Amino acid sequence: MEGFSFKTQVRVRFVETDAQGIVSNVTYMTYLEIGRIEFLRKAGISVKDRLKYGIDFVLVEACIHYKSSATVDDILNIYVNLKEMKDRAFTLEYVITHEEDHDRIVATAHTVTVAINPSTKKACMIPQNVREMFLSV
Amino acid sequence: MEGFSFKTQVRVRFVETDAQGIVSNVTYMTYLEIGRIEFLRKAGISVKDRLKYGIDFVLVEACIHYKSSATVDDILNIYVNLKEMKDRAFTLEYVITHEEDHDRIVATAHTVTVAINPSTKKACMIPQNVREMFLSV
Amino acid sequence: MEGFSFKTQVRVRFVETDAQGIVSNVTYMTYLEIGRIEFLRKAGISVKDRLKYGIDFVLVEACIHYKSSATVDDILNIYVNLKEMKDRAFTLEYVITHEEDHDRIVATAHTVTVAINPSTKKACMIPQNVREMFLSV
Amino acid sequence: MEGFSFKTQVRVRFVETDAQGIVSNVTYMTYLEIGRIEFLRKAGISVKDRLKYGIDFVLVEACIHYKSSATVDDILNIYVNLKEMKDRAFTLEYVITHEEDHDRIVATAHTVTVAINPSTKKACMIPQNVREMFLSV
Repeated sequence: MEGFSFKTQVRVRFVETDAQGIVSNVTYMTYLEIGRIEFLRKAGISVKDRLKYGIDFVLVEACIHYKSSATVDDILNIYVNLKEMKDRAFTLEYVITHEEDHDRIVATAHTVTVAINPSTKKACMIPQNVREMFLSV
Repeated sequence: MEGFSFKTQVRVRFVETDAQGIVSNVTYMTYLEIGRIEFLRKAGISVKDRLKYGIDFVLVEACIHYKSSATVDDILNIYVNLKEMKDRAFTLEYVITHEEDHDRIVATAHTVTVAINPSTKKACMIPQNVREMFLSV
Repeated sequence: MEGFSFKTQVRVRFVETDAQGIVSNVTYMTYLEIGRIEFLRKAGISVKDRLKYGIDFVLVEACIHYKSSATVDDILNIYVNLKEMKDRAFTLEYVITHEEDHDRIVATAHTVTVAINPSTKKACMIPQNVREMFLSV
Repeated sequence: MEGFSFKTQVRVRFVETDAQGIVSNVTYMTYLEIGRIEFLRKAGISVKDRLKYGIDFVLVEACIHYKSSATVDDILNIYVNLKEMKDRAFTLEYVITHEEDHDRIVATAHTVTVAINPSTKKACMIPQNVREMFLSV
């Protein structure tokens, strides 16, 4: 996907479908979480060690546009890109596509995550080294 | 909640929390689905009989703003309001609040749903009687 | 349900169904959790304050027998009963029935929960007053 | 795992943990479903094409013993083995282990699945060729 620096994949689980026979719209939030966590891992911040740089992250915004449907056993690509890096927050954009159907677009999305001080839970600056790790993906 | 015509409630389940000790951001998509289904029931369209007016509904957009957190056993109010009714689509807006903490706002959201012909799966007009049912909530 | 001291209810959510059009077998584990938490609340131990008696609980066994199916919007009764109270563990039994279909049995189940010391995470005795609270439901 | 003919893996997702900081006991039912579906794929029956042999499958029993805990990002092995093949049903047994902690056992389980006629939904014989496909895994 042009303009996207990172890609991961999921295979749709049976439990992730609903009675319309397709992937539940709720499930896409899980796929965004997977994309975000894998993007951060690539940047050098695994979800288990995410506090080692002195900050934690909280999601403050998520928007999804549903474009087409997917069903059980489909392999979906989750493309992720850093759209904006601000002092205390960053925006990721996502495109989810159907691998075996010529990368047909299933959904597009963006999320905004804020850095917080793990003790005070208040928004805080993202350290310069972390910013550079994000930009290197 | 001023300006909101409908309210339903959920109690947060243990399985809906995550390792941060709070309600998973994924879970809020389930709460929006519950709000939407209950709003439609109030309008006279139960999820089981939703095809009886000759149309089905598909979600095409969902945006959530996370404002504060909730945890297991909290009672959450889901306020729903019809924001816009167009020929083939309608927009609902939501406010989720914490019942026992003076209606503290936990999240705000909106969704866009399109009416489709159940056979062709193409977008179609929302019949006038259905439009009136929505407007009566 | 004869022999069952406690009952709670759920309405099947859309997200809880799967592509077979019925409630996912995974979802029943959530229903057991709800039954267990509500049974404990009735006994006087809310999930939020569950540590106030100096013990925590961990699930060590769950068995479900699927008898018939349920679908979206169905109202399900979750009957719960204390089957056995031992020094460090208790067994609950469950029957899940379809409210609007004459209490047709959808599933039966049992779970075994062990009391642990919240600090050491080791199994520990269930205090006498907690045992009596369970027996009073 | 000695005596187990098949293995697949999952990485624990954040949404799969709960407020105790560990994998929710509900999630293990999803892991069993993944193990079962991948075992069947290995046997030659993909979940999408599962009706091509004239039968469908329904789960009638699932029992899980929780032995130890796992948390976000852990890699879990799901070992699956055909324990018993009967005329109309088969039993699978599972061991779930923690890959990076020397295959420490996290859970053991078994499930019973019945073959049904997709039209009548009644239990039916498992065809001989399908039986052999299972036995070849």
